[in-house]
Amino acid sequence: MNRIPLEEVQGVLERVLRGFGMTEARARLCARLFAETTCDGVYTHGVSRFPRFVATIRNGCVDVSAEPLRVAGLGAVERWDGQKGPGNLNAYACMERAMSLSRAHGVACVSLGNTNHWMRGGTYGWQAAEAGLIAICWTNTMPNLPPWGGAEPCIGNNPMVIAVPRANGPVVLDMAMSQFSYGALESYRKRGEMLPVEGGFDDGGAMTRDPGAIERSQRALPIGYWKGGGLSIVLDMMAAVLSLGRATHQIPRDSLREAGVSQVFIAMDPAGFGAQGEASEIVDDIVASLHDCRPAHAQETVRYPGERTLRTRAENRRLGLPVDAALWDEILALQGGTQHAEERT
Amino acid sequence: MNRIPLEEVQGVLERVLRGFGMTEARARLCARLFAETTCDGVYTHGVSRFPRFVATIRNGCVDVSAEPLRVAGLGAVERWDGQKGPGNLNAYACMERAMSLSRAHGVACVSLGNTNHWMRGGTYGWQAAEAGLIAICWTNTMPNLPPWGGAEPCIGNNPMVIAVPRANGPVVLDMAMSQFSYGALESYRKRGEMLPVEGGFDDGGAMTRDPGAIERSQRALPIGYWKGGGLSIVLDMMAAVLSLGRATHQIPRDSLREAGVSQVFIAMDPAGFGAQGEASEIVDDIVASLHDCRPAHAQETVRYPGERTLRTRAENRRLGLPVDAALWDEILALQGGTQHAEERT
Repeated sequence: MNRIPLEEVQGVLERVLRGFGMTEARARLCARLFAETTCDGVYTHGVSRFPRFVATIRNGCVDVSAEPLRVAGLGAVERWDGQKGPGNLNAYACMERAMSLSRAHGVACVSLGNTNHWMRGGTYGWQAAEAGLIAICWTNTMPNLPPWGGAEPCIGNNPMVIAVPRANGPVVLDMAMSQFSYGALESYRKRGEMLPVEGGFDDGGAMTRDPGAIERSQRALPIGYWKGGGLSIVLDMMAAVLSLGRATHQIPRDSLREAGVSQVFIAMDPAGFGAQGEASEIVDDIVASLHDCRPAHAQETVRYPGERTLRTRAENRRLGLPVDAALWDEILALQGGTQHAEERT
Repeated sequence: MNRIPLEEVQGVLERVLRGFGMTEARARLCARLFAETTCDGVYTHGVSRFPRFVATIRNGCVDVSAEPLRVAGLGAVERWDGQKGPGNLNAYACMERAMSLSRAHGVACVSLGNTNHWMRGGTYGWQAAEAGLIAICWTNTMPNLPPWGGAEPCIGNNPMVIAVPRANGPVVLDMAMSQFSYGALESYRKRGEMLPVEGGFDDGGAMTRDPGAIERSQRALPIGYWKGGGLSIVLDMMAAVLSLGRATHQIPRDSLREAGVSQVFIAMDPAGFGAQGEASEIVDDIVASLHDCRPAHAQETVRYPGERTLRTRAENRRLGLPVDAALWDEILALQGGTQHAEERT
């Protein structure tokens, strides 16, 4: 595992994106969001996802030049068309817009259709919370999860993010509706470990902790069984209705063709509700009550969502981002880019 | 089990509430919300909860005369003080206010502090969805659920409701953050049944399907283990910050003293996003995709949240509400009321 300075990682990703024709400011932001995701310890959705992102540029799913377009709106809400642009840039722009509207109206909601995978959902939660705003946002996905009572993947794992600002560091929940992602199942299997709790069904329809059996059956469990399955369904409905974009059942079930997803970004400004400095204290008191909770295992403390992020971020800034050596070689080789390759012909 | 016409049930509850000094229009609405909850098949939170509600009037937790008060606001958001009034009336009024604001602004958020148990959360989802609006609302509760990694109840089961309008009947998700409520655990135990999936820990700290063991340990499981635990925490934080009301750790852990809870009501008007008649079709198509999903068990169909409600409602309207005979006698005996009792002295 290499340790590479954040700035160097970001610089290389930016050059790759420039090579594919992305404009300078957009390439810088897009690269920063990938690098910061790895810096924050969300290794599954950061730099390691970059080659797949490049593949979706190459296969035409992602249009590097497309910018999101406002197509409708009223007061505190707007509907945007992502025009198949880069998912993280589109999502960042729409959260920024929701934040701006929420400062004027107290709350705002921006919907975004026809966009691409937003990579790490938590990015947009941190974006709002670090600016002092509450955020609720979610995306739908291709069908990758069986609903409760279903034997095949018909619903999405539809990640949902809720972020609460706090002077001592925001609280950010970033969760998909599946108990374990396929990335997590793969990690457990490669380490030869069973899951800590049941994560899906085997081919015979029995619940199992065997990650490989779930990868084979494609029958992962929604969180809370029927409950998370229901939550996934209503998140998809709201995203499709508010964006007039695709619902999960209309999204191709292929991670390289998972295009045209729908997203919702809600921002709320505590000041609009008359809250001043006390908001941070209220959250601090809740955090303290969690830390005071008698732990199930001695030496451990109950944690709030996102509690370890700031420490991981500081460590990775200090030591450099941990990046797999083979992955880094693969990314360095992308610096030629399609455009350069075309120029050479 | 008696079968009593909805109107008769509602009339009796209304007379009881009038006896406690509730004004006519408020008593009618409060009684209707209780009766309709039972009519919709949510038997745990309807008429069967009424004697406990009366007990909280008698012990002073609920002030029948108190009306919610707007204390702050900006544009599309308002903060209200529930003034310890009846929880279902306060919640109904705040959802109504959020609905009205959302028609002007596209989205609206009303926070409500210092209120009481809202009974069935789904009530407020149906209220909005039947008027053509999307709703997201939640409440915090007393500490009744251990967080992941905790050995004692430090977080609330914080029910959350998401409702999506649809011409052929709304889709309404109404879920608490615990996998099984204590009411559900009791029902399984009385029937001598094990839970269908693990629902908590026994006194030794092992996960179990034995409902009685979980009742003894008070260690129910959050949905999705760490995920639902995290969701409960951020719902509590948002409710307390936006309402400047109590957080879970400040709410008495006693179902007869669970007062001063905090709630959030978000309404969204699809028309504000430029959606017209197509919204219902989008939801219909998603429902159709679920019904087409290959079922895990032959003869069964995947259902959307709230799918059985309209059928149950129709049946209970036709046959009368199923009400336990002893419960009904208990409620009939309440018709004297405190006030009448006082008048007689």
